[in-house]
Amino acid sequence: MSTEYDFIKACWGQPVDRIPVWLMRQAGRYLQCYKDVRAKGGGTFLDLCKDPARAAEVSIQPIDILNVDAAIMFSDILTPVETMGMELDFVPGPVFAKPIRTAADVDALIVPEDMAQAVPYVPAIIKRLRVALEGRVPLIGFGGAPFTLACYMVEGKGSKDFAALKQMMYGDFPLYDALMQKITAMDTAYLNMQIDAGAQAIQIFDTWGGLLAPHDFELYILPYAKQLINGLKRKGIPVIYFVKGGGTMLDLVKEAGADVIGLDWHVGLGKARDILGDDVAVQGNLDPTVLYAPKPYIEKEVQRILDENAGRPGFIFNLGHGILPTVPPENAIHMVECVHRLSLK
Amino acid sequence: MSTEYDFIKACWGQPVDRIPVWLMRQAGRYLQCYKDVRAKGGGTFLDLCKDPARAAEVSIQPIDILNVDAAIMFSDILTPVETMGMELDFVPGPVFAKPIRTAADVDALIVPEDMAQAVPYVPAIIKRLRVALEGRVPLIGFGGAPFTLACYMVEGKGSKDFAALKQMMYGDFPLYDALMQKITAMDTAYLNMQIDAGAQAIQIFDTWGGLLAPHDFELYILPYAKQLINGLKRKGIPVIYFVKGGGTMLDLVKEAGADVIGLDWHVGLGKARDILGDDVAVQGNLDPTVLYAPKPYIEKEVQRILDENAGRPGFIFNLGHGILPTVPPENAIHMVECVHRLSLK
Repeated sequence: MSTEYDFIKACWGQPVDRIPVWLMRQAGRYLQCYKDVRAKGGGTFLDLCKDPARAAEVSIQPIDILNVDAAIMFSDILTPVETMGMELDFVPGPVFAKPIRTAADVDALIVPEDMAQAVPYVPAIIKRLRVALEGRVPLIGFGGAPFTLACYMVEGKGSKDFAALKQMMYGDFPLYDALMQKITAMDTAYLNMQIDAGAQAIQIFDTWGGLLAPHDFELYILPYAKQLINGLKRKGIPVIYFVKGGGTMLDLVKEAGADVIGLDWHVGLGKARDILGDDVAVQGNLDPTVLYAPKPYIEKEVQRILDENAGRPGFIFNLGHGILPTVPPENAIHMVECVHRLSLK
Repeated sequence: MSTEYDFIKACWGQPVDRIPVWLMRQAGRYLQCYKDVRAKGGGTFLDLCKDPARAAEVSIQPIDILNVDAAIMFSDILTPVETMGMELDFVPGPVFAKPIRTAADVDALIVPEDMAQAVPYVPAIIKRLRVALEGRVPLIGFGGAPFTLACYMVEGKGSKDFAALKQMMYGDFPLYDALMQKITAMDTAYLNMQIDAGAQAIQIFDTWGGLLAPHDFELYILPYAKQLINGLKRKGIPVIYFVKGGGTMLDLVKEAGADVIGLDWHVGLGKARDILGDDVAVQGNLDPTVLYAPKPYIEKEVQRILDENAGRPGFIFNLGHGILPTVPPENAIHMVECVHRLSLK
């Protein structure tokens, strides 16, 4: 049945009546109703991720409000890392109190046998969402790419340079590789568990993949991304690979083997499609700050991106990164409406 | 005489005996002797920028220590903005207490008649440096590109999104244009004053230019960058334009008309040169975090970049961004030595 959704059809490069659209971080702080649910339960951001009822509720809010063509489960890319034996906190940025620095640290990392048991709230959220969505739109599951997870695990927190990880990468490749193998194994199991639970597409976020030079991307990111994507139960389930800052190395990003390439706004959509070719779909790529613009400007920008796509099949409209917390919701609603109206054949 | 310097020859695309090299932020915190000079005078970072004797002293330190092929005056891209009537502070990041938001704010901005009088310490630093360098290496002057200056002036401080500037850009183009015209006029006078004082090359830093989509770069950045570069007294003085994150739109970056294009490490050097063509030189592009790597790894990376350049004339070796404050100086020394040794014909 899933192939009847425009979103899924676009992932497979099939023609659609109108371009499907969703927004990264569409369940989030720009919506007052999200903040209400977050406040209602008390507790932390992590508590919200682990509360299937509330997490499902915030995942559905943008479907009702924005009229987007896909839901994405509410979670954080770092929650599964806890199951490897690392204590995670948000202050508000993610912090691992004991980052991975030594061979002993890597050895001590656990790869859980049963991810559904290790993070029971994730399949619970997915199952709740599938029921609650009643087939209105497909449900996207997601995870962080191994490299992006490693950035946080080794640095211990967000960073401009992730120098600790890079020192390990450059200075002790066997240790880096051992770490990446464990992360990739966990990640593969984690995403397959989501598919088993009912996720109808998978997005892999490589938020920090663009930190590396293309040559380093090929050495230190691509093998693990490829292994991860290869290891997924993809039958009928499209996989989206989003490398923020990947625009200068789309040929390499494509090699990872995903069905859909997520694009940030730093690359022109037309040029990106020319480089990527017809055998892969793309998703993107409006600058998230355009949602601060007046409505006619937003419409003009939506039209420009549709023009750049030039009617090629295999296109999902999205922002080039997550929606910003202070964007007026009516502008996001307007953007979705423009995509639907302007792309309708 | 200046055309006898390898650095200057490379800027003009002329053959050199060995590849010239310098490092962005080579006068900086990774050097203990920089920290000593900074501490010696007491006062703030801004005080150091405005003290010709100490600023010249820290500018020369890396020439002696690293054996680089060019000096760059010690300063900050935001110091000339003070002359427009904006109070600048570093806490430690730059802060303008009263950011530009309205037409009245733009109207109130001053474009000084005489930049040498407005920032007397800048020509003083340059003159001191020219004497102290005794012709050992050429001296690079620099400034921020109009867009990057506008980012700080409108936002009031550093930001991930510079949403305030983007709101102005998208929502009130005439206001944005009026602001950019004033900044560009100041910037042109500021850089020409540096040339008059004795700067032998000019680097324009567009640190935030890569924030914009290529289409927006063309609309909101390029016209002013072009106007600035066009307005410089370039006879014999090469101009370097460095757009961090410009790798996805090198064709547009080139249109600004600089003699040398600065490249960050997110784009492969070989690919960048293919796109840019033979009529412009390039400068870059080692990932600054490679200086955390063991020395043999640094050598391997230097060799890789030289290989990517493939002997094409018009190449200046540099980092893809500023040297990081915690890099061991011996690694920077090693990098420079490798460039010289491995590129010597």
